[in-house]
Amino acid sequence: MLPAPFIAAVQQLIGAKRLLAEAADLQRYGVDRTTIWQPAPSAIALPGSVEEVQQLVLLANQYDVAVVPSGGRTGLSGGAVAKNGELVIALDRLNEVIEFNPIDRSVTVGAGMVTEALQNFAEQHGLYYPVDFASAGSSQIGGNIATNAGGIKVIRYGMTRDWVLGLKVVTGAGELLELNRGLLKNNTGYDLRHLFIGSEGTLGLICEATIKLARPPVDLAVLVLGVNDFPSIMTVLEKYTAAMDLTAFEFFSEAALCRVTEHTGLARPFESQAPFYALLEFEQGGDQLDTAMALFEQCLEAELVSDGVVSQSLSQAANLWKLREDISETLWHYKPYKNDISVKVSKMPDFILEVDALVAERYPSFEVVWYGHIGDGNLHLNILKPAELALEQFVAQCSSVSSEVSELVERYQGSISAEHGVGLLKKPYLKHSKSSEEIALMRAIRRSFDPKGILNPGKLFD
Amino acid sequence: MLPAPFIAAVQQLIGAKRLLAEAADLQRYGVDRTTIWQPAPSAIALPGSVEEVQQLVLLANQYDVAVVPSGGRTGLSGGAVAKNGELVIALDRLNEVIEFNPIDRSVTVGAGMVTEALQNFAEQHGLYYPVDFASAGSSQIGGNIATNAGGIKVIRYGMTRDWVLGLKVVTGAGELLELNRGLLKNNTGYDLRHLFIGSEGTLGLICEATIKLARPPVDLAVLVLGVNDFPSIMTVLEKYTAAMDLTAFEFFSEAALCRVTEHTGLARPFESQAPFYALLEFEQGGDQLDTAMALFEQCLEAELVSDGVVSQSLSQAANLWKLREDISETLWHYKPYKNDISVKVSKMPDFILEVDALVAERYPSFEVVWYGHIGDGNLHLNILKPAELALEQFVAQCSSVSSEVSELVERYQGSISAEHGVGLLKKPYLKHSKSSEEIALMRAIRRSFDPKGILNPGKLFD
Repeated sequence: MLPAPFIAAVQQLIGAKRLLAEAADLQRYGVDRTTIWQPAPSAIALPGSVEEVQQLVLLANQYDVAVVPSGGRTGLSGGAVAKNGELVIALDRLNEVIEFNPIDRSVTVGAGMVTEALQNFAEQHGLYYPVDFASAGSSQIGGNIATNAGGIKVIRYGMTRDWVLGLKVVTGAGELLELNRGLLKNNTGYDLRHLFIGSEGTLGLICEATIKLARPPVDLAVLVLGVNDFPSIMTVLEKYTAAMDLTAFEFFSEAALCRVTEHTGLARPFESQAPFYALLEFEQGGDQLDTAMALFEQCLEAELVSDGVVSQSLSQAANLWKLREDISETLWHYKPYKNDISVKVSKMPDFILEVDALVAERYPSFEVVWYGHIGDGNLHLNILKPAELALEQFVAQCSSVSSEVSELVERYQGSISAEHGVGLLKKPYLKHSKSSEEIALMRAIRRSFDPKGILNPGKLFD
Repeated sequence: MLPAPFIAAVQQLIGAKRLLAEAADLQRYGVDRTTIWQPAPSAIALPGSVEEVQQLVLLANQYDVAVVPSGGRTGLSGGAVAKNGELVIALDRLNEVIEFNPIDRSVTVGAGMVTEALQNFAEQHGLYYPVDFASAGSSQIGGNIATNAGGIKVIRYGMTRDWVLGLKVVTGAGELLELNRGLLKNNTGYDLRHLFIGSEGTLGLICEATIKLARPPVDLAVLVLGVNDFPSIMTVLEKYTAAMDLTAFEFFSEAALCRVTEHTGLARPFESQAPFYALLEFEQGGDQLDTAMALFEQCLEAELVSDGVVSQSLSQAANLWKLREDISETLWHYKPYKNDISVKVSKMPDFILEVDALVAERYPSFEVVWYGHIGDGNLHLNILKPAELALEQFVAQCSSVSSEVSELVERYQGSISAEHGVGLLKKPYLKHSKSSEEIALMRAIRRSFDPKGILNPGKLFD
């Protein structure tokens, strides 16, 4: 479907073997972690330099070819899906460390670097890249930035946004921009860097990023608590955050724990059952461990929690983390409906009750599994497909759930996508999180960066 | 200079006594902390609600009236100067707490709230607003956001940007936008909130802000070190940041210390003199104080520092802070040329040497006084007017200094404005920090939000 002279020019530019069009390649590079859309790109380009990316975008403009930027394709919203004969530009080859300075505690890397590789690089230099999530082993830095990835350490370390000191991008018009120069402080007009973070490939291709690194946390302890009901989690959160700096405050339901222990063979944290579990992580140095244990006693006395365990070793801490981190992978076995939403932390108890009631009333056979990042107001709503329900019917019914939950999110002044982005999946619901004026301004901004609309068409908005 | 029907409509809208036009009002509201431009607004409007702000902007559009938004007018770049018959819209009356929730640790306030009032409000509720700087007693939250104010705690807590969870703004076109709804996580397209932060009143008027609050730091200690040369400060910084979480790492030169002690009567930190001083602040709990003192011993042995003192009480800590915080106010007595610049932390030693050499060679009678935020790469360059030089000549010569320093900043890939913004003062030098493509995109964005260009015309760019 690509014009022949365009193909010739691309082959000339990056080399014929860097332009893939085998069925397996189209399948592999044309889709992210979603399973809803059929991948159908025309070809996959694997540029080897920022200059090649820029030339590719200029050629795409010249020949009116739609482009889908591709990172690690671990997204959950269809932001990297190519289903209409687009050219996929995959940044895989731009995966090197370009510059590192220990005094600045910053590193410039190619957008194709895998998250875990950056984490490891930081560790080798006595530093720490704190953005972490289940797909760190395959997601790429460029994709993380394009979706402003969150994860399990946001309560202490923030989102990907908070670690980006500089970006080298090629806009939809083919302009090369160097944004913020890796500086910590730079108040010189609109911060276009922040516009690119979370833009899901609709303004430009992120080619390189300068990332801030942190002092590594020391001697982390993990505490898992059995909590008697959801409002109690809030009280526990308030008590702990008032007294200490947590590096994580996660939660999951008994239903989630059952599935994970069943599928992974991991031991339960303790024998007794509770409706919900909170997972707290903190540096145990100073008197932090004592503080944490004293608060635990208080929570027990106040009947907020029913049981608890604190890690006694690194391996025990890692195993407790797995109870939370393996939930997502475990639930894939149940062909789940997944929704990533947020409300203000204080509104979570009421919101969860309303969602539970809504699903119970309308779809009594559905099993809801909750987990997420309590400290950030971020809930992962999962619904497992009932064994007796055909997949198509389940998908259709879940589409109604999405509409109803999105309306509820709007009523709670929340977000229809907390950390996964909009892509194709959340596009119909964007109106519940953004006003029509905001969406019109977003469109106008997009036109300024990508006048011909060749980048990731149909993502975010039509 | 304002059209009569416009004046009548404004008086009708906000009440005649809320539209000021006395000479003293025009003088007071027409200028910020800069002393370069003569204030000459036509009138000052003091709206009492967001709706009134919106109606004012709609009227300004209708009658083609230029508007200058005004906060606490503590800016140092002329961003709030009204010198061409504009209508100043001052947000002073929107200064209330609108909503506070201790579980969310967030507070929604009017843009006119004074920074210190927010700090105090947080303290009263056992929380902490960590953005702090010398003008906290009169600067307003809206102005802080419009200039992305930094200050003395950035190394630990970041800039104003990092504390803004939501904004209610009126765009130049008169549209009311609620950006980000106070959420911690919300990945639903371009984050327009971040576009407004640092936009210096050229996209819209910030009317309300939802601000995140933090756990207050406990038991802060201040350590002042005499450092033997500038490169040694870098080594000291590296040692301390590798081992502990600092809440501040500031520096000042012996010249700065002399002026401050002379003008304020404060005691020197210790008897011996050093070319530079580093001020470190940290929570002394756990073993942090021991760590800090052990590092001090190491630094003494390595001949990086020559002397030091650690605070033994809150009042001593406050007095040590004054040595740094009173520099800016002290230097005003010398009619100083001031420049706020940043480079990467690692490049500071070379950069400072080059600036010193440049000034020494070209303007041997100029005395350079350095201070700033080492941990952020942020230098405040001050040049004192030689007593024998006429002010006009000094200003003219300093204009050449600005050009030369800006070229040097570009060569070092730094920023011509680290934390003060661009306004009128840095407009001629913006090209040294932003490419022509970036500036063109900034202009296009401005047109989307303010199609008639009525907001703060001539600021940032022409």
